[in-house]
Amino acid sequence: MKPINLARKLNQFNSHWDPHVIADYNENEVMVVKFQGDFPFHIHEDTDDFFLVLAGEMVMELQSESHPVRAGEVFIVPKGVTHRPRAEAECHVLLIEPKGVPNTGDPTTAAPKPRI
Amino acid sequence: MKPINLARKLNQFNSHWDPHVIADYNENEVMVVKFQGDFPFHIHEDTDDFFLVLAGEMVMELQSESHPVRAGEVFIVPKGVTHRPRAEAECHVLLIEPKGVPNTGDPTTAAPKPRI
Repeated sequence: MKPINLARKLNQFNSHWDPHVIADYNENEVMVVKFQGDFPFHIHEDTDDFFLVLAGEMVMELQSESHPVRAGEVFIVPKGVTHRPRAEAECHVLLIEPKGVPNTGDPTTAAPKPRI
Repeated sequence: MKPINLARKLNQFNSHWDPHVIADYNENEVMVVKFQGDFPFHIHEDTDDFFLVLAGEMVMELQSESHPVRAGEVFIVPKGVTHRPRAEAECHVLLIEPKGVPNTGDPTTAAPKPRI
């Protein structure tokens, strides 16, 4: 049990679209991730998706709307909603999902999630 | 579905130790809260407790240790661990707990949680 400094964790990697697990909260993984560019549209049928922008700005694209999400803003994508985050410049995000959820929504194409 | 600006939500109330629900994430409530002073020691037997300091600084006191937690730092209190947050100066926190968890751990003394 100790405080987890998010900026320090984010300094430990440079890759994009590569969530790193920093803690567990009940059956969820708490992750930090760097976004830059476009992520593919995907869907999580069984879980909401929690995003908090820590630095920079992203856009959450849904099928018929899109929302800029800036530092200090939370965006929750409800389960079953097709979405893709994108970011013109690098954007740092706190992400919470239940353990084992593939980041693309598809286990066959999902990246493994390292723990730091 | 829209971005939730945490600072704007925090501007909507002045009370301390009074979590306000700003969103749902699966079976959890996402809250913002202002800490100042000492909260009583308490325990959540069935859930972890997620704290992210947004502004200011708090101290998480456990039974035999205490940890300063500063802006940009997460502290997760595992289920079954007696704890109390305290803050000398006002501290703004993002808090996540399963729906219906009493903030004191005790339903008879817990404050209701308004939604903003």
